Amino acid sequence: MNFEITKQFVENVKEAVEKSDETLALDLIHDLHPVEIAELYDELNIDEAKFLFLLLDGERAADVLAELDENDRERFLKVLPADVIAKVFIENMDTDDAADVIGDLPEERQEEVLSHVENLDHAGDIVDLLDYEENTAGGLMQKEYIAVKLDWDIKTCIDEIRNQSEDIDELYYVYVVNSENIFVGVLSLKKLILSKPEKKILDIYNSEAISVRTNTPSEEIVNLMDKYDLVSLPVIDPIGRLVGQITIDDVVDVLRQQAEKDYQMASGISTDVEITDNVWRLTKARLPWLLFGVVGGILASQVIGVFEDDLTRLAATAFFLPLIAATGGNVGIQSSAIVVQSIASDSLGIQGFWRKIFKEFGVAAINALVLSAIILSYNFIFSDSLVITISVSISLFVVVVFASIFGSIIPLVLHRMKIDPALATGPFITIINDLVGMGIYLVFTRFFYHILM
Amino acid sequence: MNFEITKQFVENVKEAVEKSDETLALDLIHDLHPVEIAELYDELNIDEAKFLFLLLDGERAADVLAELDENDRERFLKVLPADVIAKVFIENMDTDDAADVIGDLPEERQEEVLSHVENLDHAGDIVDLLDYEENTAGGLMQKEYIAVKLDWDIKTCIDEIRNQSEDIDELYYVYVVNSENIFVGVLSLKKLILSKPEKKILDIYNSEAISVRTNTPSEEIVNLMDKYDLVSLPVIDPIGRLVGQITIDDVVDVLRQQAEKDYQMASGISTDVEITDNVWRLTKARLPWLLFGVVGGILASQVIGVFEDDLTRLAATAFFLPLIAATGGNVGIQSSAIVVQSIASDSLGIQGFWRKIFKEFGVAAINALVLSAIILSYNFIFSDSLVITISVSISLFVVVVFASIFGSIIPLVLHRMKIDPALATGPFITIINDLVGMGIYLVFTRFFYHILM
Repeated sequence: MNFEITKQFVENVKEAVEKSDETLALDLIHDLHPVEIAELYDELNIDEAKFLFLLLDGERAADVLAELDENDRERFLKVLPADVIAKVFIENMDTDDAADVIGDLPEERQEEVLSHVENLDHAGDIVDLLDYEENTAGGLMQKEYIAVKLDWDIKTCIDEIRNQSEDIDELYYVYVVNSENIFVGVLSLKKLILSKPEKKILDIYNSEAISVRTNTPSEEIVNLMDKYDLVSLPVIDPIGRLVGQITIDDVVDVLRQQAEKDYQMASGISTDVEITDNVWRLTKARLPWLLFGVVGGILASQVIGVFEDDLTRLAATAFFLPLIAATGGNVGIQSSAIVVQSIASDSLGIQGFWRKIFKEFGVAAINALVLSAIILSYNFIFSDSLVITISVSISLFVVVVFASIFGSIIPLVLHRMKIDPALATGPFITIINDLVGMGIYLVFTRFFYHILM
Repeated sequence: MNFEITKQFVENVKEAVEKSDETLALDLIHDLHPVEIAELYDELNIDEAKFLFLLLDGERAADVLAELDENDRERFLKVLPADVIAKVFIENMDTDDAADVIGDLPEERQEEVLSHVENLDHAGDIVDLLDYEENTAGGLMQKEYIAVKLDWDIKTCIDEIRNQSEDIDELYYVYVVNSENIFVGVLSLKKLILSKPEKKILDIYNSEAISVRTNTPSEEIVNLMDKYDLVSLPVIDPIGRLVGQITIDDVVDVLRQQAEKDYQMASGISTDVEITDNVWRLTKARLPWLLFGVVGGILASQVIGVFEDDLTRLAATAFFLPLIAATGGNVGIQSSAIVVQSIASDSLGIQGFWRKIFKEFGVAAINALVLSAIILSYNFIFSDSLVITISVSISLFVVVVFASIFGSIIPLVLHRMKIDPALATGPFITIINDLVGMGIYLVFTRFFYHILM
């Protein structure tokens, strides 16, 4: 009921494929859900996967393809002729999945595959979907949905569901349109089931249903479906005609990808990777931000280099460089993370920009006071140098306040400029705060050295 | 259709409340969805919110309470008498929401509130739910669901839905049980709608449906519902009897909270906060890891202190301390983030522990080579010190490899020990890698100084 792919199972499948034992291979994967077969493919090489794919009937093969991750899918489609892709996969896929698959192909290949799709309505729907931006309602929606007319009765409605039922796997809502195909509301299945056949839809439908435009961004869709606990969401065109629906499973995927993306940004990883990816992909995802960090480190070495004489004079200055740099970095990451997360969950609140910064200043001042007091006490007891004792505490205070405000302002400003605020978290904020923090600390130390010595 | 709470709107509501103008206040919030009223409460003080709450009818008041965030709810329930909580809220809430609300009350208060619930079945269901751990299927499920018997026909089934329909807002699946209430499968609404009234459930239900036990952890539930694109999930007890259902909206909330928690951990924030929270809550969430960071900084100062003479001899040593520390920290965060994310999305793959570490070593070695080559070229051109040129490059290589492996191993080990691996990301990994990195660098520098000078 809840299958786990084991090493042993993968070996059994590989063996069956190697012997070209079709019966055994099919037998092994017979009870698997498409998503489980997709997981199995992760563990096979391209020839083994191809062998298995061509054993499956079209419907199932299409379901498996839809569940594969993008890289595996691309790798796999490269080795198949266009007519097989069209007939085995595209014909059997929901329009949204089919559009995703075709959208990832090179342009000439797209046309070739589409020309082999026999169901012209289906091909037309896919072409329509290809026009929309990936991260919008249009890019997420599917053309498969049930629409009924406002003036129908329940009996006609059920007949229509029967007619369209082949295209639809699961049914959660029926959409209601007027005679011009303008979306006017939804009919819940509960009402549909409990009403008499002669009851008019007009009398029982819900006219206050939420819908989105084709150009609504996917973040907004996630927030809407989460906020209003929706299972599906109708999509309308600029004049209000129903053109598609988005289902919750697609939105869960978007939510997951978004969360992963933000997490990766904060961790300094530049593309979507998993521990099972190959060395090359993993390196490519990690090197960019590390290089950026090394450039930051070189800049830091130059900032410190300016103060070489001070360091020779008072080597203890160097002891607290990491503390100042790290605390500045940590504070900046916290501030930017809170802003980024509030933006992502659409909970920035109605407070104005300066109110937010003012509050951030309050939080920063309290944190800065506590941290400075601790390091002051520590140095007061353990340090021989009055200059260091005073300079570290005062610099830490200034650095924490600066890093907080800076870490909050940057994502807020990016968000206003319609740039993804998550870009500003992680290494970027850390490096700037490191540099500024060390600069502040070294200047203060020189200043107090001249005053006190 | 898609309402945004504006400053002006909040002011209008506050004004109506201040004048105790019930008609105006009700008029203003009349068209709002419960979740929108909950958002509005965020902007009101406790007395204003209470005034509005007592204007709403029970059903709506209960919906709003369910949508409030935990802190606001707690603050609000404190000022209400137990019988009002029971009659206005608990009686009108779904069992899962009611159990959440009551579970957050102090123990004596729980009993007091429950004693005022008039519907004893409802109270009993809530008491049952209170026994389950929060992050398990039992803690997430609700007692409201439609179950039909295997030997019924469609007509009986629809009658049963009619009988139970008052408890259920939305219907997505009907669960099928045998005569002992043992869960045997699901019936899709599509089939229910399209089948003749005399058709037996036995002939059309799906016997391969996925179910979970009451003690299944919530992460697993999220992964199951995501993987198999489920909208609801039946929950069974140890002998297979159907005891509840989990709906997708609850799982979306869990997924969001999980993602936010991991993101916070990586950013060094210790409790769930938003930019709209007050200064005290924000400080409390941020100070713990900053303190930990300062302790790390103090340890770093002691590590560097051991090498005070080296620094006096060759001040340029200090220039590259931040580069080494920061790069070690960055690499460690990346490694741990990839592991944590793979664990969260249940995609660790079937590779063994040592294979994973070996691959990590490969990625680390490539990154380390590139970074070391860059810093070697830089110092070769710009640095006066051969010791520093050699020592920085070699240390950077060692530090990157060490930090990668360390960053991967720690979360993998924690996961094996059933401890949340996200604990190991963020400040913890950074601080350890900072310290070890600087130690390695200072030792190498001393070594090369003695060899080369």
